[in-house]
Amino acid sequence: MVANVFLRGLALIYCQKKREIGKLGKYGAAFTASLTLFSAKNPIETKAFMALPITPLDKLSRNPDDMKTRMELMIMKVQSDFCKALEKEDAVKFKVDRWERQEGGGGVTCVLQNGSVFEKAGVNVSVVYGELPPAAAAQMRSRGKKLKEGKLPFFAAGLSAVIHPVNPMIPTVHFNYRYFEVQSEEERHWWFGGGTDLTPYYLNSADCIHFHSTLKEACDKHDKSYYPKFKKWCDDYFHIVHRGERRGIGGIFFDDLDTPNSEDCFQFVSECANAVIPSYIPLVKRHKLASYTKVEREWQLLRRGRYVEFNLIYDRGTKFGLYTPGARYESILMSLPLYAKWEYMQRSAKDSPEETLLEVLRNPKDWVDVSGSKPEELQQGQN
Amino acid sequence: MVANVFLRGLALIYCQKKREIGKLGKYGAAFTASLTLFSAKNPIETKAFMALPITPLDKLSRNPDDMKTRMELMIMKVQSDFCKALEKEDAVKFKVDRWERQEGGGGVTCVLQNGSVFEKAGVNVSVVYGELPPAAAAQMRSRGKKLKEGKLPFFAAGLSAVIHPVNPMIPTVHFNYRYFEVQSEEERHWWFGGGTDLTPYYLNSADCIHFHSTLKEACDKHDKSYYPKFKKWCDDYFHIVHRGERRGIGGIFFDDLDTPNSEDCFQFVSECANAVIPSYIPLVKRHKLASYTKVEREWQLLRRGRYVEFNLIYDRGTKFGLYTPGARYESILMSLPLYAKWEYMQRSAKDSPEETLLEVLRNPKDWVDVSGSKPEELQQGQN
Repeated sequence: MVANVFLRGLALIYCQKKREIGKLGKYGAAFTASLTLFSAKNPIETKAFMALPITPLDKLSRNPDDMKTRMELMIMKVQSDFCKALEKEDAVKFKVDRWERQEGGGGVTCVLQNGSVFEKAGVNVSVVYGELPPAAAAQMRSRGKKLKEGKLPFFAAGLSAVIHPVNPMIPTVHFNYRYFEVQSEEERHWWFGGGTDLTPYYLNSADCIHFHSTLKEACDKHDKSYYPKFKKWCDDYFHIVHRGERRGIGGIFFDDLDTPNSEDCFQFVSECANAVIPSYIPLVKRHKLASYTKVEREWQLLRRGRYVEFNLIYDRGTKFGLYTPGARYESILMSLPLYAKWEYMQRSAKDSPEETLLEVLRNPKDWVDVSGSKPEELQQGQN
Repeated sequence: MVANVFLRGLALIYCQKKREIGKLGKYGAAFTASLTLFSAKNPIETKAFMALPITPLDKLSRNPDDMKTRMELMIMKVQSDFCKALEKEDAVKFKVDRWERQEGGGGVTCVLQNGSVFEKAGVNVSVVYGELPPAAAAQMRSRGKKLKEGKLPFFAAGLSAVIHPVNPMIPTVHFNYRYFEVQSEEERHWWFGGGTDLTPYYLNSADCIHFHSTLKEACDKHDKSYYPKFKKWCDDYFHIVHRGERRGIGGIFFDDLDTPNSEDCFQFVSECANAVIPSYIPLVKRHKLASYTKVEREWQLLRRGRYVEFNLIYDRGTKFGLYTPGARYESILMSLPLYAKWEYMQRSAKDSPEETLLEVLRNPKDWVDVSGSKPEELQQGQN
């Protein structure tokens, strides 16, 4: 598990001795000059991306069927689709930082800060490769991966995002989809991981049902066992243990996915990544003009304090990333909210909307049942 | 080291399956009824304390020369002196929570929130005893303490405080003084630890020199080697590694102090604890009416974000405490500021006051030289 965490750290955030290669505006000269690179065989359409892919275009176009190429292009596309969907709701545009990692690979970090609808929105692609550090390899072995001693080439590609809206009636969303390869002698180990989860400040059953239903629908197209399994995994993972609370109302979370085959896994992960927009954007539209009070804003800030607690104390990717020398901490910590609050002995009134949320954070509930129909009590909650 | 961390966690913050015993107002009936308990031999004066000591008064009065008694009474007194010194500067008073730990001991947590001068000030006493958990004992052994297998009675008493003022021109201060005993067969292991450190938002050389000079004076009365050694230890400990920054301009930090004898150690620790008021309160008085801008307030919030990063990611006491089942997280997390901020890619202008502070956080400097005189450059800085 720790090795996987290491790779998540690498895939999403890791940039050892990174070299910033300038802040390319989306329409910067270097970028527009290479919008499309035609190889003899495979044109790579980069026009829609937030920046050029990390892997050189000629290498991508030479290997169109390689899972590394397909994953990189998929996450570049979803990054762009998601950023553009968010920009449509906001008066402010994303700032795009394309960075390279000296040892191989790099990333594209897109952040929208102080927007009209989004207080802080970060959407990050990382594509890193090189040689697996011995400690990470040892941890992978202890997890069951059969890896030789010595040099182990690896590749990791991931897309990660956290969106903190201004309005406390819009939930925060987080998602993360990743792919890893490690080469050991003749064998190539590979696996996928990921998840999408929602952190509301005020509980709106219709939102929760819509969000979970959308994720379940994406899962069900691939394997009916996925949603219930990954929903529970999500509730278990996003646990602020010292408070006995979950970070939010969950979603899906999975790791080490390598069955039934890489094609099916890729299709499933692509499906999930593409389900983020339909799962979340309707909630933004629904609540972005809602009125709210100072008390509700303060409650949002307190809950953002809990978000910071989870990310800095428990989240394995964040911790591993930050402990790695030379980590690009700006990309790791883009997940933190613009503002957060900690109040000593804060208690919400009995039967208050704040307490209603806490009850669900303490005792996660099912928002859609396994058979796909909405639980009766939730149908009522939707009214 | 980890075992020590465990004990620091216990001494300062730990309260397994704690039972809140009500929020005693400072002048609550239960308290005033027992202001002074006279035993035949040793009256224990509790009038000045924020609440009753944790150990029953009759037990304290029966063992006046026991280091456990002396430490508990010393930290209760310093807690009270410090809280009263802060209250003199503020329109708001401390809220006092006295709590008990089911397995033995408890604490007195004093918090002043949303004051006129202090945004959040927490001053916590813990006095806990019982049986050392096996994992902690194992870790202590790996650190060199010779402890038998099986049940190990322990005692830990500590005082800990973090003061976050409203005005960005007043620095945040933190201190922590603690005493431990572990009984193994015939041998009683004991040691002291502690430190005081300052986190300014804007660098004021006169403040830094005053603060360090006061600590050095306290150290020098006991051992001329203490200040330089503990000053470096402090700079090394409060290191936000991923940013390559210290949390603040340091102070002193020490652990495992058990020489030359327990009496001298206690006198030294008492001296340091009593040096907090003269080291810090003059800075509060000096700056509490200073004007400041919104930009300076936002910078203070960003630095408070760094404070949160250090405490949640690196501080061993906080981490160990939070990982302990049943920890009293309210007392652990009272160290966090009321508000904090994280901005993606925030950069301060060259030669700005913000950059001047950062330079010192990146490269800690000596504020007083070892011989006791102020370095020439700092004397200039004081003008």
